[in-house]
Amino acid sequence: MDQAEGTISNAARDLSNEDLTRAVFASFGNSTSERFQQIMQSLVKHLHAFVSDVQLSEEEWFKGIDFLTRTGHITDEKRQEFILLSDILGVSMLVISMNNQKPAGATEATVFGPFFVEESPRFANGDDLANGAPGEPCFMQGQVHSITGEPIPDARLEIWHADEQGFYDVQYKDLTQARCRGHLFSDKAGHYSFWTVRPEAYPIPDDGPVGDLLHAAKRSPMRPAHVHFMVKAAGYQSLITHVFAAGDQYLDSDAVFAVRSSLIAGLEYHKPGTAPDGREMNTPFYTMSYNIVLVPALE
Amino acid sequence: MDQAEGTISNAARDLSNEDLTRAVFASFGNSTSERFQQIMQSLVKHLHAFVSDVQLSEEEWFKGIDFLTRTGHITDEKRQEFILLSDILGVSMLVISMNNQKPAGATEATVFGPFFVEESPRFANGDDLANGAPGEPCFMQGQVHSITGEPIPDARLEIWHADEQGFYDVQYKDLTQARCRGHLFSDKAGHYSFWTVRPEAYPIPDDGPVGDLLHAAKRSPMRPAHVHFMVKAAGYQSLITHVFAAGDQYLDSDAVFAVRSSLIAGLEYHKPGTAPDGREMNTPFYTMSYNIVLVPALE
Repeated sequence: MDQAEGTISNAARDLSNEDLTRAVFASFGNSTSERFQQIMQSLVKHLHAFVSDVQLSEEEWFKGIDFLTRTGHITDEKRQEFILLSDILGVSMLVISMNNQKPAGATEATVFGPFFVEESPRFANGDDLANGAPGEPCFMQGQVHSITGEPIPDARLEIWHADEQGFYDVQYKDLTQARCRGHLFSDKAGHYSFWTVRPEAYPIPDDGPVGDLLHAAKRSPMRPAHVHFMVKAAGYQSLITHVFAAGDQYLDSDAVFAVRSSLIAGLEYHKPGTAPDGREMNTPFYTMSYNIVLVPALE
Repeated sequence: MDQAEGTISNAARDLSNEDLTRAVFASFGNSTSERFQQIMQSLVKHLHAFVSDVQLSEEEWFKGIDFLTRTGHITDEKRQEFILLSDILGVSMLVISMNNQKPAGATEATVFGPFFVEESPRFANGDDLANGAPGEPCFMQGQVHSITGEPIPDARLEIWHADEQGFYDVQYKDLTQARCRGHLFSDKAGHYSFWTVRPEAYPIPDDGPVGDLLHAAKRSPMRPAHVHFMVKAAGYQSLITHVFAAGDQYLDSDAVFAVRSSLIAGLEYHKPGTAPDGREMNTPFYTMSYNIVLVPALE
């Protein structure tokens, strides 16, 4: 039997656990970019520490591989389960929070979420974005302005939210058009306005791997009602945020930890009558107002 | 304008970064299983520490989401990119190493790798597993025995390895049969033997997301030549390991940190003539011998 080659122990073989971590760390020591190297070496350090701390078993490792595989396979152009995972682990909000320290008065950022879609339909101010989505009519308006109060015209506002059923358009299997989704531009005085349906609280999709995690943790998948905004204007920092509906029962238990008090706006009920834009409503309707305050772009 | 609901600051909203980590940690505090809770809470702690330590930017976060998505999408029943990722980050070897502390003399474990396939063809001892794979003939044999030297009959040995081109059968797009892959059982004296082709050093697949990582790190994708074994026998702990070919130039720079000196076996060259099993060879051939030493199962 020729069992072994010899007794030479080289740094890159027969690695004990600490040496292994050091060797993997060192393997990123010649990276093409310093930033990539910093990120990967930190990742290696923390990932190995996690595996060691919990003494991860081989079966648990296999479950982890299977979890990530299922998360990848359920992800497509309409469902982003990795973002959902990042959201429920608070990673999204941590990244948003670290990178968006704003001066007083500026609109705070919150999570992007998994339901944004590129190339939404364009609308004019006052149009109805609902496009037939189920729900009660809601008129939303506000002004985009700077922290010093100057109106910001021509800001591009991307808007998307869930309907009365708690679903985004992309969650309806056979729906091909956008609903409760679109973009428009602020007018000369920085004002924006649109009709849509009243946003509703909803459970994040819990029929996939992320749902399995939530169920195992006995965590609620509910998010308070909100409207997503992504706002871009020349000379200003882009803003990704939500406007939350005041009074929602889930404001203090958001499944993705994304609520900021400054992002809560009143959702006012109105009997049939004249809406703020002069439209005659023969059904009850709601109004929401929210001003969006942008910070100048960095030089 | 009805900008804010009030000044009440609740634990679950307006979370600063440290409070956010605490809130996510706490959200797993009522889990269905204690072990699940321990793993998730440790994961949250380390993941948040990583994100904070490197001050991950939003763009980098998006890149991470995109990386995981691509890793999921390239993974199918024949390619397991998440295992490959775990391998090149040393996580696989760390898990293997932590969970397989063996008594002296026992065959050490090493990584599983991404190329195992369920339901391999069955062979008898002495059969040729190559099934037409390109490469030079190689006869491999050994004995499965206990740490006290008792032969272990009827051990099931799953064997898989790369051919002369450095490819596993599953890496050939149009190949539907198994090549250099199969299972057999040790005989009454614990012996096993089979013909195959000489295993070759090879690059792990670097045309996907994991390859992008390796290239960005200027890391070599090469692995030293090896034959995978998974060995199961009643009354003994299962073993997942490789046998490496002595003299390979990559033994000290394995892309997945998996080499153990005790797993290296001589790969002997022979001129045409009689092989150890009596077969007359009219071409040069190789032999490899390796005894597999199993540890009793835990009660």
